[in-house]
Amino acid sequence: MFKSDVDVFFNPKSIAIIGASRDPKKPGYQILYNMLSSGYKGKLYPINPRATEILGLKAYPSVKQVPEDIDLAVIVIPAQYVPKVAIECGDKGVKGIIVISGGFKEVGPEGAKLEEELVKIVKEYNMRLMGPNCVGVYVPKTGVNTTFLTRDRMGFPRHGPIAFISQSGAFGVAVLDWAAMRDIGLSKFASIGNKADIDETDLLEYLVEDEDTRVITLYIEGVSNGRKFINSLRKVTPRKPVIALKAGKTEAGARAASSHTGSLAGSDVLYDVAFKQTGTIRALGMEDLFDMAIALAFQPPAKGRKVAILTVGGGSGVMAADACIDQGLEVPRLSERTIEKLRKILLPIASPYNPIDITGSARDEHMIESVEVLMRSGEIDVIIWIPYFMVPGISEGVVDEFIKRVREVNEELETPIPIVGAATGGTYTWKLAAKAERMGIPMYLSVERAAKAAWALCKYGEWLKKLRVFTEYVERYRKNKD
Amino acid sequence: MFKSDVDVFFNPKSIAIIGASRDPKKPGYQILYNMLSSGYKGKLYPINPRATEILGLKAYPSVKQVPEDIDLAVIVIPAQYVPKVAIECGDKGVKGIIVISGGFKEVGPEGAKLEEELVKIVKEYNMRLMGPNCVGVYVPKTGVNTTFLTRDRMGFPRHGPIAFISQSGAFGVAVLDWAAMRDIGLSKFASIGNKADIDETDLLEYLVEDEDTRVITLYIEGVSNGRKFINSLRKVTPRKPVIALKAGKTEAGARAASSHTGSLAGSDVLYDVAFKQTGTIRALGMEDLFDMAIALAFQPPAKGRKVAILTVGGGSGVMAADACIDQGLEVPRLSERTIEKLRKILLPIASPYNPIDITGSARDEHMIESVEVLMRSGEIDVIIWIPYFMVPGISEGVVDEFIKRVREVNEELETPIPIVGAATGGTYTWKLAAKAERMGIPMYLSVERAAKAAWALCKYGEWLKKLRVFTEYVERYRKNKD
Repeated sequence: MFKSDVDVFFNPKSIAIIGASRDPKKPGYQILYNMLSSGYKGKLYPINPRATEILGLKAYPSVKQVPEDIDLAVIVIPAQYVPKVAIECGDKGVKGIIVISGGFKEVGPEGAKLEEELVKIVKEYNMRLMGPNCVGVYVPKTGVNTTFLTRDRMGFPRHGPIAFISQSGAFGVAVLDWAAMRDIGLSKFASIGNKADIDETDLLEYLVEDEDTRVITLYIEGVSNGRKFINSLRKVTPRKPVIALKAGKTEAGARAASSHTGSLAGSDVLYDVAFKQTGTIRALGMEDLFDMAIALAFQPPAKGRKVAILTVGGGSGVMAADACIDQGLEVPRLSERTIEKLRKILLPIASPYNPIDITGSARDEHMIESVEVLMRSGEIDVIIWIPYFMVPGISEGVVDEFIKRVREVNEELETPIPIVGAATGGTYTWKLAAKAERMGIPMYLSVERAAKAAWALCKYGEWLKKLRVFTEYVERYRKNKD
Repeated sequence: MFKSDVDVFFNPKSIAIIGASRDPKKPGYQILYNMLSSGYKGKLYPINPRATEILGLKAYPSVKQVPEDIDLAVIVIPAQYVPKVAIECGDKGVKGIIVISGGFKEVGPEGAKLEEELVKIVKEYNMRLMGPNCVGVYVPKTGVNTTFLTRDRMGFPRHGPIAFISQSGAFGVAVLDWAAMRDIGLSKFASIGNKADIDETDLLEYLVEDEDTRVITLYIEGVSNGRKFINSLRKVTPRKPVIALKAGKTEAGARAASSHTGSLAGSDVLYDVAFKQTGTIRALGMEDLFDMAIALAFQPPAKGRKVAILTVGGGSGVMAADACIDQGLEVPRLSERTIEKLRKILLPIASPYNPIDITGSARDEHMIESVEVLMRSGEIDVIIWIPYFMVPGISEGVVDEFIKRVREVNEELETPIPIVGAATGGTYTWKLAAKAERMGIPMYLSVERAAKAAWALCKYGEWLKKLRVFTEYVERYRKNKD
């Protein structure tokens, strides 16, 4: 059984692809191909009246001829035929339909009429509809993949704890492709297109219950029902962080949004207020969105704004301190007691203040011992780690040892201390940085981005404290993090 | 002969490495190794009293025993012995010395005394000194490379038009490593350490005359002589763009800078004023520094702030419009005449306004024809190009064709129109984006970064216009760009 009427889009046992094609140039071919190559394990039924077999699968002239139940139908046929096949889907007992096809509301009054008709059918049969005019869903875990770009031109990301909802299909797909290269794991991706039925609100309420999702990211140009959206965010943010990239915020952007998705972008100030009131974190761009998402997915929230900067490179320490202050964080002086402890551990040329500059002459143990001192000091809430893996005294094994120590200490602390890293460098540096990230410490190319990620951890921590659910959240984090 | 007394550091005919070592763990070994593997073609003399041969090169007990002239000496021996060998270098007629060794001003009063002594010797012999406490220089073209990190842990960038001066050695080296991975070409890199003699001012005045350098980038924590620095910038910026990353701008950052390089960071407001008065562009971080540098190195300055956004993805168009407005740029509506011309070229579903959304159904010719219309319209000053290489109608050959057309049109225009690109995506997208960048169109992962690059082109154009040297600069750009 499905957990909700939206679950069918992400966990269908059987899928019909209406408009499946034998022509590799057509979306109806690529969807089937992408689904197969993403490892979808359920039943797949290509629907095409002029084919008996596509990509090795038996094809049927219509859903009605399929001998077994169909959970989800993916529709890629010209708009005018969509209502007719939607009725057939309804008769067949299909639970959800994704209409990839364009030619609806976005093209004018006639398309809008067609869309209304489609919605009416969907309601009559008690089905749910995603789209029309969308690229649908991608779920790494179940292999459901209704995108239609060819695999030689795009990659798909692995499974991970971040959900991504995009109003824009093209941008959504570009992000999937980038996430594959950047090695960001996604739990679920959904492109909601014209939002004739399912919208961001439905997905927020579904994803808050989704075990595989720890952070929800959104790209939106406009929401139709602001009140409903705000109520949803209010329900979700005490349990999971929501990060929104709201485009169309300037007059020029809003004009573009209106001709793109027909969204009335509305006053951006209202969105800003809504995000603030609901503890939703607003991202300034695609990289910012995922920089913060990775931090919130893998690290606990910070209980305050006091940052310790632990660096091998002095210059990076200076820039990190600047970046923290620019973000409204604090880089406090440490107590004499803590400075003394650090001094005992570190090289004489090291600087045991904050930033703690262990210098390019440092060895693994300087990094590992000092992070423990900082974590146990009670004087800081979050750590920015700048390891400079390239220097000769730091070994390749430092990542394992450092993270092991951080985990051990965090298990003993009442409130775990979050850590984010910055690794400016090339291939060798990123081999180790990628390893650290796989082990749960988000790593960024620059200290500015690491500082922004630290800010997100502080910001969300403040929201949870305001709602008095900080401890509850941290307990859940501790249980679910592995 | 050398073009100036600083030129010897970048184009030496012969180099002595004083403190060259047979032990691969020592900097004195790695410098020799890096120099050899960077393809330095001049004479190399390892100096080590306890060795006869290092890495296949004959070693000498001191520079005095070297039978030929020595242009440059790189010194990597303990601080206390440096003055003595500096005298030997002076006697030998060495023109420049790079003191890699630390243990001078940065360690306290005794080191400061040693540094004063060293400077006195250098002046007496009419030599120039880089450092002490630095990593020296890297010149891809001549293979001069005095950095001492091992090649298995770092990469070195190729030759290109961007010079980079860094007060911080570790950060400088990390940037080299990153630039190699990101495929950014550098003309010259210099790390100036304690700046006992050569400082950013000397290098600015050298680099403005350097044929291989089109853009100068700076990482600084503080300058000792503000007046001299400002005068230098005034001389350089009418001829070449200067982009500065000034760290230590906050109180926490300044505190860190003071314990890092002993820089008195001074009031950040003063730096801001100095940069504004001299047309120096201030970067907000490492990525920002090089994002803008690439744009200014490969594209002409913009003659105004009017941006056209040419996109295949609607959502990216919306975000790009927002980002431009956020940067203080304009995204003007196009004239009816231009809109009509675009409409004739584009698909009916395309949006011929600004952003010009040619849609995911677009083919190569839509992109190529419309960029020409925009460039010839006389209504815009800079173009942000968002190609979405992944969509089926866009061919792999589009990069060549598009750039060919842009070049042809720009040759005919009185003022060339600069173009920057944004390519959100993965491996395939970046294969083509990297190609476009190699051909001269700077490409960024996000529209926000492309908008910032466009801003830099506008900002520098405004500065040149203010000084009434815009036309002169553009003529020089046209002559030198290939």
